[in-house]
Amino acid sequence: MVEHIAVIGCGAAGATAALQARKFDRKVAITLFNSEKYSQYSRCGLPYTISGKVKNFEDLVLMPPESWAGLNIDAKLGFSITDIDHKKRELFFSGADGEGKQAYDSLIFATGAKNADPPIKGLDKKRVYGLRTLDDAKALAKEADKAKNSVIIGGGLVGMEAAEAFHERGLNVTVVEFLPHILLAMVDPDMAQIIEDHCRAHGLKILNNTAAQEILGGDSPSSVTVKNRETEEVSKLPADFVVVATGVRPVTNLAQKIGADLGPSHGIKTDDRMMTNLKDVYAVGDCAENLEFITRTPMAGGLGTVAVRQARVAGINAAGGDVRFPGIVGAKVTKLFGLEIASTGLTEDMASRLEVPIVKGSIKGSTKPPYYTGGQDLKLKTFFNKDTGKLVGGQLVGLEDAAMRLNVLTLGIQQDIDADELFDFENCYAPAVCDTWDPLVQSADVAKKRLKR
Amino acid sequence: MVEHIAVIGCGAAGATAALQARKFDRKVAITLFNSEKYSQYSRCGLPYTISGKVKNFEDLVLMPPESWAGLNIDAKLGFSITDIDHKKRELFFSGADGEGKQAYDSLIFATGAKNADPPIKGLDKKRVYGLRTLDDAKALAKEADKAKNSVIIGGGLVGMEAAEAFHERGLNVTVVEFLPHILLAMVDPDMAQIIEDHCRAHGLKILNNTAAQEILGGDSPSSVTVKNRETEEVSKLPADFVVVATGVRPVTNLAQKIGADLGPSHGIKTDDRMMTNLKDVYAVGDCAENLEFITRTPMAGGLGTVAVRQARVAGINAAGGDVRFPGIVGAKVTKLFGLEIASTGLTEDMASRLEVPIVKGSIKGSTKPPYYTGGQDLKLKTFFNKDTGKLVGGQLVGLEDAAMRLNVLTLGIQQDIDADELFDFENCYAPAVCDTWDPLVQSADVAKKRLKR
Repeated sequence: MVEHIAVIGCGAAGATAALQARKFDRKVAITLFNSEKYSQYSRCGLPYTISGKVKNFEDLVLMPPESWAGLNIDAKLGFSITDIDHKKRELFFSGADGEGKQAYDSLIFATGAKNADPPIKGLDKKRVYGLRTLDDAKALAKEADKAKNSVIIGGGLVGMEAAEAFHERGLNVTVVEFLPHILLAMVDPDMAQIIEDHCRAHGLKILNNTAAQEILGGDSPSSVTVKNRETEEVSKLPADFVVVATGVRPVTNLAQKIGADLGPSHGIKTDDRMMTNLKDVYAVGDCAENLEFITRTPMAGGLGTVAVRQARVAGINAAGGDVRFPGIVGAKVTKLFGLEIASTGLTEDMASRLEVPIVKGSIKGSTKPPYYTGGQDLKLKTFFNKDTGKLVGGQLVGLEDAAMRLNVLTLGIQQDIDADELFDFENCYAPAVCDTWDPLVQSADVAKKRLKR
Repeated sequence: MVEHIAVIGCGAAGATAALQARKFDRKVAITLFNSEKYSQYSRCGLPYTISGKVKNFEDLVLMPPESWAGLNIDAKLGFSITDIDHKKRELFFSGADGEGKQAYDSLIFATGAKNADPPIKGLDKKRVYGLRTLDDAKALAKEADKAKNSVIIGGGLVGMEAAEAFHERGLNVTVVEFLPHILLAMVDPDMAQIIEDHCRAHGLKILNNTAAQEILGGDSPSSVTVKNRETEEVSKLPADFVVVATGVRPVTNLAQKIGADLGPSHGIKTDDRMMTNLKDVYAVGDCAENLEFITRTPMAGGLGTVAVRQARVAGINAAGGDVRFPGIVGAKVTKLFGLEIASTGLTEDMASRLEVPIVKGSIKGSTKPPYYTGGQDLKLKTFFNKDTGKLVGGQLVGLEDAAMRLNVLTLGIQQDIDADELFDFENCYAPAVCDTWDPLVQSADVAKKRLKR
């Protein structure tokens, strides 16, 4: 009988876990701890507070602090967990408003991730930021008001979204990407090239294959020295401030302390009920490791969609229910300078690393029939397992209807469809919307022919 | 051994059948007959030649007449079939350029549909049009150049798309709809109401529940008398010309003549190889009847997407292949004054007529997260079989991303998913694109709760 659930962390994962536990059981006591003083806000929305596409910081707060009381959830905001005695099922917390202990029957870790600092000198200067918290975003929005030159280290999703925001605010922005292309955790190099061309055409500077070496200056940055990894040429980029967005690591110290196992992704290992190796202890969101949907390879999700889905499962199970998380497909999307960029399942690189032999269906299509004005180019790839014919991934880049098309591929992966089934997909058609054979179907046709060999 | 394939009709269905037969067999002789002098053009694109969203009539021609020779397909354009001797497998044709006969091994009917004239007086006047052929569209584009007042009889897809086009050209347009709402073959009354409100807000006049009685005038129309079916009030609508868009009937006379069976939809009955009851005789597109995907009820497709998919199957099979048509889901979409309107599977009315007990997931959502500027309202319904929980239909109306979301539901129907599986759908998420729980998933959540009872 579960009488008390403790949730550590009040990001999308922790807040969702608490809410879903409450929905499942109206009476169970729930305590929600957050080291930040804020209640749940959208982390993904942070870059848009800089550009103004999110108008107010407060708009990002999805669950205001006072809303928890109405749900009979005790939200302890601004409190850190100092220790956990899992044998006694007690945890100890401390914050500006004092300290205390809390007994629990079920415990949910939603401790998230923290920025992984790269080996760069000068990271300890003022005006060197991550972009992970509301306070980060507030500070960066002020920088956008006064600074001229910014350097973004890391061309992943956060780095690129931040770069777009500062560029839109009129700053001189340079993205420094260590790998040969930006966004390689999401798309293949040929798609990344299209995205880079698009961003550069809008005036963004992107340095690929380039290592940031040192942030120079006094208290604050004046410039960043970078080295082209191919030519070994070293140059200096002027920088009034620097954003470091080189990825994150799961926050697992408390969980490890009580004996929760970590997996190869450095996340807390969980089963399909989102339970760790410890009975009644769950982990969800960026701190948790679960299985990639297709190959069942352990991975950390690192996605808001995955976090809330895992959190729902853990919240219900922690309250005595029994639901399952089906695995992480990893559907990702963003929009940069109007270009929609979408990816699901395995990339070519992932497929190669996970030893999944693939056949590609690549298409340069259009979002609308050729006779209708205003259609946009759409670059589209689908990947099928060479042995089984099953859909294992897909990527789209285009100025419209790329992201929503991706959703078809994600459901297709979840339903285990093969190239024949994607080819038989009856897409909707109207001149003002899309052609009779959607580019998705055309890509399946291309792949079908290659699978026959 | 198939040596000669004859295809009657060169719309999307006939042209696709011929092309796919050629792809499958490089040597088989193929003759393609069309009573119109044009080669394949997009019928669905016709309304947009009036508004100018399709710039030239020629743009609609997908296969120019001269393109067939290069494919070694003998296209006899402007020829009608006068008789068929199926015992001898010969057909007789006649046109402006003479007449002749043609032997065949496989025969494909792609004879399409024709306008079904409603019981209205005065239909024989000049300047009373259908909108089904390129010549219709050319004449109507000329009307838009000179006329002031138009009446569109019938608020289905063709009627509404034509009404939008004339309205955009500055004409005074009234749509006369016999039923209580427009577009009821596609959407439920509550969705139709949203669409009507939107069109009216843009200045279109729509008279629901209204019977057109007589087209008055001399040689040409001067007005149309209409009667409100509820109040029985009769009124006169000024009309320089009239468009009649009250639906179509399959063209089946030739097929019937040689003994092909018709089904309850009045279309030519076909099996899953698109073959009629006569060996080696196929029927595809608007003239053909096949099975509705979910209930396996006989129906005529009446959709371009369905036509080309059936035609591919028939073309390959006629050439000696063996592929199957999976049935008609019936995904439909259009855009009126910027509003995307999308429907798939069963409507409430269809479900009732086909005795499928349904549970609804209705959502008023937004296309983007609440904190991000520019999201649009999205009205969304999903239908699930009350007994099995399976997805059987869905409708969306919104200013963006309604049509592409529909595609997820259509694939879901084709993959036989239930409410739990739609709820587990991992939609892509980014603030600039869509929220963490897509409205599709939210609708599944609503339905799941109702299915539990």
